[in-house]
Formats: sequence, structure tokens, C-alpha cells
Amino acid sequence: MPYVKVEIAKGIASVEQKKAVIKGMTDVLVKELGRDPEYIFVVIDEVDTDNWGRKGQSLTELWSQRNPTGSEST
Amino acid sequence: MPYVKVEIAKGIASVEQKKAVIKGMTDVLVKELGRDPEYIFVVIDEVDTDNWGRKGQSLTELWSQRNPTGSEST
Amino acid sequence: MPYVKVEIAKGIASVEQKKAVIKGMTDVLVKELGRDPEYIFVVIDEVDTDNWGRKGQSLTELWSQRNPTGSEST
Amino acid sequence: MPYVKVEIAKGIASVEQKKAVIKGMTDVLVKELGRDPEYIFVVIDEVDTDNWGRKGQSLTELWSQRNPTGSEST
Amino acid sequence: MPYVKVEIAKGIASVEQKKAVIKGMTDVLVKELGRDPEYIFVVIDEVDTDNWGRKGQSLTELWSQRNPTGSEST
Amino acid sequence: MPYVKVEIAKGIASVEQKKAVIKGMTDVLVKELGRDPEYIFVVIDEVDTDNWGRKGQSLTELWSQRNPTGSEST
Repeated sequence: MPYVKVEIAKGIASVEQKKAVIKGMTDVLVKELGRDPEYIFVVIDEVDTDNWGRKGQSLTELWSQRNPTGSEST
Repeated sequence: MPYVKVEIAKGIASVEQKKAVIKGMTDVLVKELGRDPEYIFVVIDEVDTDNWGRKGQSLTELWSQRNPTGSEST
Repeated sequence: MPYVKVEIAKGIASVEQKKAVIKGMTDVLVKELGRDPEYIFVVIDEVDTDNWGRKGQSLTELWSQRNPTGSEST
Repeated sequence: MPYVKVEIAKGIASVEQKKAVIKGMTDVLVKELGRDPEYIFVVIDEVDTDNWGRKGQSLTELWSQRNPTGSEST
Repeated sequence: MPYVKVEIAKGIASVEQKKAVIKGMTDVLVKELGRDPEYIFVVIDEVDTDNWGRKGQSLTELWSQRNPTGSEST
Repeated sequence: MPYVKVEIAKGIASVEQKKAVIKGMTDVLVKELGRDPEYIFVVIDEVDTDNWGRKGQSLTELWSQRNPTGSEST
């Protein structure tokens, strides 16, 4: 009877990718904990980059500072 | 001083229905736990059906599979 | 397929009262939104009074300030 | 490695104000708990006033009842 | 920069199983969304069976009703 | 009427530090958004280090790998 909430930045996942996340998360709980998928909920919350902060700055700010070849993918 | 978060699929509740949910949830906490409604918060989060999964599939998928007379109402 | 999270202060609800809250919250969603109880989850989180704040003070502090006949029940 | 979720009513904060909230919340955790800002997340959730209730009514209702000079700012 | 919250019933997962869940959830987000694991948080919340309800009953009640060979694993 | 949830690792904050976090978070919302502290809730959730993961490992594992003079404070 697990419940999973996944928070990601808005705009990084297509409908197909979100399906894959739902499937993947469910499979982890079936495989590792033996849960019945019938009662596994996965909720994805897509957060606007103005509304997500790390190290005191919004993602909008953080991502605008990355150089074109930057490897940071926060 | 309770806080209640209610997650439902987007599109299943009108403004009037959401008012009724807020009222009903509040009444439960007043009646069963004797809380002061002044400090009871209820927050409703309406989740896109692409973003809610059960048994490894999105609600969009699950609901499209129901036959017209199906009684499943997940 | 709703999910409900209820946060209350630790120590204010017995096992029987928590059962009544689970039943009451579920009934609200069945009655007002027509949801199938089979897939309604209710999770109660009991928060230590040192860990819950209102108006900048912990509940432990706020409750110790109430006079014996005080009617505040935050 | 703290995570902070802030729920506010939709429409009360500009992008600049949300930046200030992210910065302020992060600073509190650095100053009071000595956390490394590199791993402090702050997520702001802006809730529609039809979806937020207090004392059994939606914010839309509560705010429409305030008189023009009312000091209540729930 | 994703954040994942996993709610499971208390007592169903060992420390090793929780490690596997953390690893598995992280891998899903790396594989499906290309996120940097450096900034992927996974938080597991183990909920007392008195505090988790489904179809209007606590897990404590639901699990006590299962017959010894029952396959329900909610 | 904001609600703030703060998740931190268990064992890093004393009761006095948690009071300071509650006060600090509340002050940010008063100062930056003009909210009324009467209706500002702050809830602190202290998460066991076995239950918090980053980059696919639990905090228990991550913290045991730090050298004695390590500056990482995740």
C-alpha cells in the first residue's frame, strides 16, 4: 500500500517519460518490498523553476548561470 | 491545529464540491478530535491524470481502459 | 483514487479516534466526490509538539501558556 | 540536506518575493542548523484560493468576507 | 534535482531493503529523466499501521482480517 | 495562511534549535510576504538517517564515508 510522491522541475519530462517513471517506481516497490501493485500510488508533481530553490537560488537562476557545456544538471 | 492535504485527480470536482470537501474534512476533525476549526487547514491538490499512477500505469491509461459500463472508479 | 494526509499533534488522538478519522475522511470523499473507497488512502501523521509551530512558537510553548480554563485549542 | 516545502495562496507572491523566500528559508537552516546550502532544497507550492480551506471555508470565501479595512490576512 | 517521498507501512522493510529502495528510486530518475544523482533526494516515511487507512479502515484492521493464505498485500 | 514543512535528518537539531527554525521560517513569511503569523504553521519532520537518501545511498552510509576533517555536511 505504498504511496510515492515525485517532485521534478516542470518541463523536463514528456508524458512518455512520466509513464516510465510511474512504471519504474512501482517496479522498485514490487521487487524490493514485495508490494501489490494494485495499491501502489505514484504522484508526480512538476514544480515551476521559479518555485524550486537550491543553495538559496531558484532553479531559474541556477540554470541560467550554467555555461553552455556545463555538466551540472540539478 | 491540524493540517489536511487531499490529493484528487484533476477534473473530478467542481468548486462547490471542493467547498463540501473542505467543510466535511474540517467537521471530521472537530467532531472526532475536538479541534478548533479556527486553526484547521485543508489543502486540495488536483493532480493531472498523466501525473497520477496506480499499478504502474497513469490514470489517463487506466481510465481509458475501462469499458463504458465499468464500475471501477479509481 | 484520492490520497489524504492528516497532520495532528502527537498525543491528542487514541487508536479509536484515529480509526474514526480514517472512516470520516473516507466517507467525505465517497459522499462528496463519489470516489471508490477501495482506493482511498488516509495517512495520519502525529507530530511532536516540539516540532509543530504556529505564530513563531512551538506547540509545546503555546500550550504551556494557556491558562487552566483557556478555551484555545490550537 | 534539508528539504523545505512552503505552501502559500496563489497570487500573493511575485517572482522576486519567491526568490526572497527561497533565500530567507535557506539562510535560516544555514544559520540555525549549520547545514550546507549546496544541499538545501526549497519548494514553493502556490495553492488556488478555491483549494485552500480554513475553519471549514475556502480562502476565496474567507477573503470575500473581509471588510475593506479588515486586518485579517489569513 | 528531484525529490522523492516514499510512504510505506512500518515494519515491512529492513535497513537493507530501504537501501535498495533508495538506490532503485534514484536509478529510475537517472535512467528515465537523466537527472544528476548528486541532487536526488529520497525520503522514506514508515507509517504505523494504526495511522494508515484504506477503504475506511486502518491497516491494522485490514491486515487482521486476511486469512492465513490470503494473497492481499495492501 | 502559509504552511511550511521542514525535513531534516534526525539528531542534528536540539529543541532550542528547532524553536529557532520555527521562529526563523515564520519571520521570513512575515517579512517577505506580509503574512499574519497567527496563521503560519511550521512542521518539522526529523528523518532517520537510514530513511534519507542522496545519490542513491542512505545518509547513514554517506556520513560514514566522510573523513574526519571532511567538509561535506549533507
